[in-house]
Amino acid sequence: MSSSSGEGTTEAGESYVVGVDFGTLSGRAVVVRVSDGEELGSAVHEYPHAVMDRELARTGERLPPEWALQDPADYVEVLQRAVPAALAAAGVDPSRVIGIGTDFTASTPLPVLSDGRALSSLEEWADRPHAYVKLWKHHAAQPQATRINELARERGESWLPRYGGFISSEWEFAKALQVLEEDPELYAATDHWVEAADWIIWQLCGRYVRNACTAGYKGILQDDELPSREYLAALNPDFASFAEDKLAHTIGQLGERAGDLTEEAAAWTGLPADIAVAVGNVDAHVTAPAARAVEPGQMLAIMGTSTCHVMSSDQLAEVPGMCGVVDGGIVKGLWGYEAGQSGVGDIFAWYVAQQVPGRLEAEAAEAGLSVHEHLTELAREQPVGAHGLLVLDWHNGNRSVLVDTELSGLVVGLTLATRPEDVYRALLEATAFGTRQIVETFQDSGVPVEEFVVAGGLLRNTLIMQIYADVLGMPISTNDSTQGPAVGAGIHAAVAAGAYPDVLAASERMGRVTRARYTPDPERSRAYDEMFADYRELHDHFGRGGSDVMRRLKRRRREALTTQPQEER
Amino acid sequence: MSSSSGEGTTEAGESYVVGVDFGTLSGRAVVVRVSDGEELGSAVHEYPHAVMDRELARTGERLPPEWALQDPADYVEVLQRAVPAALAAAGVDPSRVIGIGTDFTASTPLPVLSDGRALSSLEEWADRPHAYVKLWKHHAAQPQATRINELARERGESWLPRYGGFISSEWEFAKALQVLEEDPELYAATDHWVEAADWIIWQLCGRYVRNACTAGYKGILQDDELPSREYLAALNPDFASFAEDKLAHTIGQLGERAGDLTEEAAAWTGLPADIAVAVGNVDAHVTAPAARAVEPGQMLAIMGTSTCHVMSSDQLAEVPGMCGVVDGGIVKGLWGYEAGQSGVGDIFAWYVAQQVPGRLEAEAAEAGLSVHEHLTELAREQPVGAHGLLVLDWHNGNRSVLVDTELSGLVVGLTLATRPEDVYRALLEATAFGTRQIVETFQDSGVPVEEFVVAGGLLRNTLIMQIYADVLGMPISTNDSTQGPAVGAGIHAAVAAGAYPDVLAASERMGRVTRARYTPDPERSRAYDEMFADYRELHDHFGRGGSDVMRRLKRRRREALTTQPQEER
Repeated sequence: MSSSSGEGTTEAGESYVVGVDFGTLSGRAVVVRVSDGEELGSAVHEYPHAVMDRELARTGERLPPEWALQDPADYVEVLQRAVPAALAAAGVDPSRVIGIGTDFTASTPLPVLSDGRALSSLEEWADRPHAYVKLWKHHAAQPQATRINELARERGESWLPRYGGFISSEWEFAKALQVLEEDPELYAATDHWVEAADWIIWQLCGRYVRNACTAGYKGILQDDELPSREYLAALNPDFASFAEDKLAHTIGQLGERAGDLTEEAAAWTGLPADIAVAVGNVDAHVTAPAARAVEPGQMLAIMGTSTCHVMSSDQLAEVPGMCGVVDGGIVKGLWGYEAGQSGVGDIFAWYVAQQVPGRLEAEAAEAGLSVHEHLTELAREQPVGAHGLLVLDWHNGNRSVLVDTELSGLVVGLTLATRPEDVYRALLEATAFGTRQIVETFQDSGVPVEEFVVAGGLLRNTLIMQIYADVLGMPISTNDSTQGPAVGAGIHAAVAAGAYPDVLAASERMGRVTRARYTPDPERSRAYDEMFADYRELHDHFGRGGSDVMRRLKRRRREALTTQPQEER
Repeated sequence: MSSSSGEGTTEAGESYVVGVDFGTLSGRAVVVRVSDGEELGSAVHEYPHAVMDRELARTGERLPPEWALQDPADYVEVLQRAVPAALAAAGVDPSRVIGIGTDFTASTPLPVLSDGRALSSLEEWADRPHAYVKLWKHHAAQPQATRINELARERGESWLPRYGGFISSEWEFAKALQVLEEDPELYAATDHWVEAADWIIWQLCGRYVRNACTAGYKGILQDDELPSREYLAALNPDFASFAEDKLAHTIGQLGERAGDLTEEAAAWTGLPADIAVAVGNVDAHVTAPAARAVEPGQMLAIMGTSTCHVMSSDQLAEVPGMCGVVDGGIVKGLWGYEAGQSGVGDIFAWYVAQQVPGRLEAEAAEAGLSVHEHLTELAREQPVGAHGLLVLDWHNGNRSVLVDTELSGLVVGLTLATRPEDVYRALLEATAFGTRQIVETFQDSGVPVEEFVVAGGLLRNTLIMQIYADVLGMPISTNDSTQGPAVGAGIHAAVAAGAYPDVLAASERMGRVTRARYTPDPERSRAYDEMFADYRELHDHFGRGGSDVMRRLKRRRREALTTQPQEER
């Protein structure tokens, strides 16, 4: 299914770029004017196979729990459908387009042959689940990730602190090791273990270039080195040569030109052949130039179902619990930091679906509001602390700074007078406290956060934004585009095409930000300082060894459900 | 408003008693057959003034927060309306009735003249709020209670440990001290500070007899002594003679005959003059003989919006956090113990009103169930621990064993997969853990609990009962009457009339119990043992000084609402 929208027309002397954002369920193409970043038209194409997390579409084979696969052919369809539709919507003459850039979910790797053909596209392998793309949220490689971390800690591997002390099951090594151990034949047939972010560039320009961002954040490339043969052999003797044989390859810096658009890709997209194809990129990181958050100390939070924080700095530091620090990971020449909160909008959505009474749904409908909007209005005027509640926002575990999926949500302060909007507000505040915990961890590690910029869907909720300003005690700047990643990809395309000398310069002209859109209220900030001290007490008690009750509850839940499986509603 | 129901007819050779249960909003009369306790007819009369907690009915004067008054004339109306209606419903010849017994909420004291007239009934005082009955849930004497406790601790008063270390703001001394300090003129005009439980007996038989139960539990009568003149003077010099002047009076043991029904009261009720009037009693305590829970070691839990636990024992011990231990407090000759949980059914009702989504309300309606019943069915088959949650049941504070109204409810283990019925089940379990905490505190203090008997409205929910059996690891016996207190009052009437030698003997014939109606499942009990260890960890951490976060949240809520009052929904 595709949809498009646009308004512009080709203007004399102007040139354009196309940015394509590959998300979890669809790809979005945007046509952007090079001179000022104006978004002229866009189109979305949904992946026909969406996410395969129950069965393999081709065979109907049932997939184990925690699997999440995609079919890479769907990505090519986005190029074939969304790009021409966006061009049409923009009313832009394709000959004026000078480059194309992309961004992708990550880590989303797939096995390919040396010529770039995906194993899943070959009759010989297409029936095997391991032949397909392992989407970022494929979590079945957790046993491998646990071994990767334990062995790295034991051996004191120097790269481990660059990832806050934890390599995720979502990343390249854990997923590749799972393939080796569960389908060694297919592993043997794999010539390259490629990020989809780079595979799509390969399809566009015919060249395999690993982008510095995923190579660093997801591929453990640090100081130009991958994990050693000895380390990998200790994980599994057959894994010894994984890095050198299947991973190592030419690295491209962000904003560089990976190559020229091939004739074939030009035919798919309706774009001129030989225009610039930018090096691949990741959705969160590529948003930084679109939101003009590329200078050292400008932390960008992309707030949606979860939140991803990215920030550049001229200093290298090892920040506990960060997702990673990578040289040139966001902007060439600076250290790129990444951190995250695993549940934000997701938690609010869960609350609305599972814990809000029918009378509020009816009131919202009557007022022509969504339940979120209605709860927001009910909670908006509350004085800080009036609900008497405090929440730990770990309903989906904690990514930064504790990096522990065994943690869970907590609410304290409930009374017989507690109302639905009280808990809702406390949930909003909890995610703000979670953000402050991350910001302060960066500060305490010697990486100053000087500005906080927000992009993403939660921007819509002005109460959340004000709470974040009050809790952080710093102004909140906002990105004004609803399609930040695609615009960011377009900015990279403009740099790759030579329209700007570098990403910083392009960002300044093409990015969009309202500085200090929300400013903290001193009195509310003081009240939140007190509440944050309590949040921190609970955070440390349940997250740092004071109590292991959350871990025991999760273990018991698993055991109980294994013994006697429960219908999911 | 009155209603009645009944079925029996007078039988040859049988005699009958009337029990009257004075509740918070209404009084209920029941006609009971002396030979076997059969309930033959009952009637309810609602108090015309209900609870005055916003304004004084007579003047419209606005009452301060935490006040709760009643008009004692309403109690007399119950005698005039409900007793005749119950007799009519029972179809019993009134001449065959040999006695009347009562029970009351407590502590529910009022100021009266030496002849028993309530100050509120006198033109001179009727406009003053302090002239009225202070219902048990009048909580405005907390400042006085705090001073009472602090001074008693300081001075090492020997009676303090008999109350688990805490005198409640609901009891006689705190409420009387409030009268003295807020309306000294009215205090001076008061001849007796009387429990409504005894005042109603005074109306029936013309004699003032203080029942041993309220005198002990609510009036600090221990070892035949009241708090000393010195202690009271230190509280407030004008309070020095309170005990000797306004409180001390003849004590009646439970089941004794306070006197004979007066002609006036006979005219009110339609009963023969001169029949036995039993000594007054308290709703929870009087239920023990109705439920055949009068032997040492039989703990009775009256489970409704809150839970009250009463148990007799031949041993005196000081149990931390109990509400009190009183010689003859339940049955003459045994030590009567009382403990309580301040929120039980209230918490489930709050959850259903504030946190259950509309779709479940619709499902319940479709299935012809209440939302409680629907949630119960959804939660019933869950394996223990499958919801992954743990709750502290302190939404209305903690009565026993922590005695702390500043505590609040806590939920831990929330995830994006948590469903409404999961939290509901965890709430049921939490109140069971709260009960186990009380039972174990008794055991640890040398007061063995050998049987657990349940009466009250929550009996209806078979899942709750099974969870209690599994959590306590002991069988649950159940009282089979829906009007246990009134039947218990009738049992006391039968003893006062001489139909049985004592309450134990009467209970054996007239009480109703199903022994071991629910038995624990060994496997579930083992699983709950583990969860209870976690409950206890949280209980001690938040309740015993590990963390003061709950107290800080309550303080901040009060401060925030004082600064900027909030509309209550």
